[in-house]
Amino acid sequence: MDLYDAMSTLRAVRRLRPDPIAEDIQQRIFSAATWAPTGGNTQPWRLIAVTEPAKKQALQDLYKPHWDAYVPGYEARLDTMPEDAKPSSIKALDAGNYLASHMFEAPLIAVFCFNPKLMTITDSALERPSVVGGGSVYPAVQNFLLACRNEGLGCVITTLLCYEEDAVKALFKLPEDWHTCAHIPVGYPVLGGHGKIRRRPVDKMVRFNEW
Amino acid sequence: MDLYDAMSTLRAVRRLRPDPIAEDIQQRIFSAATWAPTGGNTQPWRLIAVTEPAKKQALQDLYKPHWDAYVPGYEARLDTMPEDAKPSSIKALDAGNYLASHMFEAPLIAVFCFNPKLMTITDSALERPSVVGGGSVYPAVQNFLLACRNEGLGCVITTLLCYEEDAVKALFKLPEDWHTCAHIPVGYPVLGGHGKIRRRPVDKMVRFNEW
Repeated sequence: MDLYDAMSTLRAVRRLRPDPIAEDIQQRIFSAATWAPTGGNTQPWRLIAVTEPAKKQALQDLYKPHWDAYVPGYEARLDTMPEDAKPSSIKALDAGNYLASHMFEAPLIAVFCFNPKLMTITDSALERPSVVGGGSVYPAVQNFLLACRNEGLGCVITTLLCYEEDAVKALFKLPEDWHTCAHIPVGYPVLGGHGKIRRRPVDKMVRFNEW
Repeated sequence: MDLYDAMSTLRAVRRLRPDPIAEDIQQRIFSAATWAPTGGNTQPWRLIAVTEPAKKQALQDLYKPHWDAYVPGYEARLDTMPEDAKPSSIKALDAGNYLASHMFEAPLIAVFCFNPKLMTITDSALERPSVVGGGSVYPAVQNFLLACRNEGLGCVITTLLCYEEDAVKALFKLPEDWHTCAHIPVGYPVLGGHGKIRRRPVDKMVRFNEW
């Protein structure tokens, strides 16, 4: 696909069919992730490709209570949204509920892992949440999502499983220094899949030379 | 460009010509950033497009001492590298030295800002560096880099300016709740620009079902 066509139609796709993903397609979406830049080219991330039914079910069982706890806040935000933004947010909520009960059906759950000891985290001493470590793993995540879109595969970033880090680490036998930061169910879409996205226009997101 | 062609040839380009970037090209690279996914579609990031010479010079003046302090560690790592990896790392170091003295020449420095209060940071209570906030801004950064590559523009993520967060915030009059996490010089390449990249192969980066 053309780069801009892929980017501008990459949606969060949360209803996924159980059909398997061919080996060569898997290789391409994994390769795309490896191409991403990382600080000092250290590539301080790894991907656990989860395909075993019992492990996918275990992830869902860990995920669902946190999704259920997240919903009331989301519903409260719905009330304060502009009317024209509500329909798509309600659809996203329905799809999120679906995912929370069907995650195990996805043929692949991509668990992105990272090792902060391999990173130069330049904002770690600041008195605000650190994010810079993410600069050496989420570009790979974005490449992975774009590659999924290119291959016709639905996908969505989830991060709620960070609340269950110890259990997730135990499930995959991660070494002590490695942690997880994105858990991405991947599969062919049940419904329309990727397509139109809703975003703020450039003039709301970009300012020249000062805030 | 084709998506995979763009991704697989996106290099860190650190020698940039001062030639200006046409308005329509700027709009396209900014649009690409806005298309990225963010948690709950909140888009909790903004971009300051720095084009004023005095502000670009101010960023360079803040950046250079931290680059100079970073170099000895980089040189120490060079000594422990496999021989075949050294030439490209030495070239990257030379290019980094160039950037530290020529950053002000880039026609555009893109400063990505984020507001953690607009984010659900699911790993903030863990006893390891938090990265999840980065999941709602570095995908936009990666889209931006890929769009630059598509337009023939060199670019590179830098994060050393996080060490000077207060000064950077003052320079751009950022509100208290907004911070910066990537400072990306953009311009047409002095040398070959994008092209071949060196990355670990998929089988070193991806494991199935357990570590």
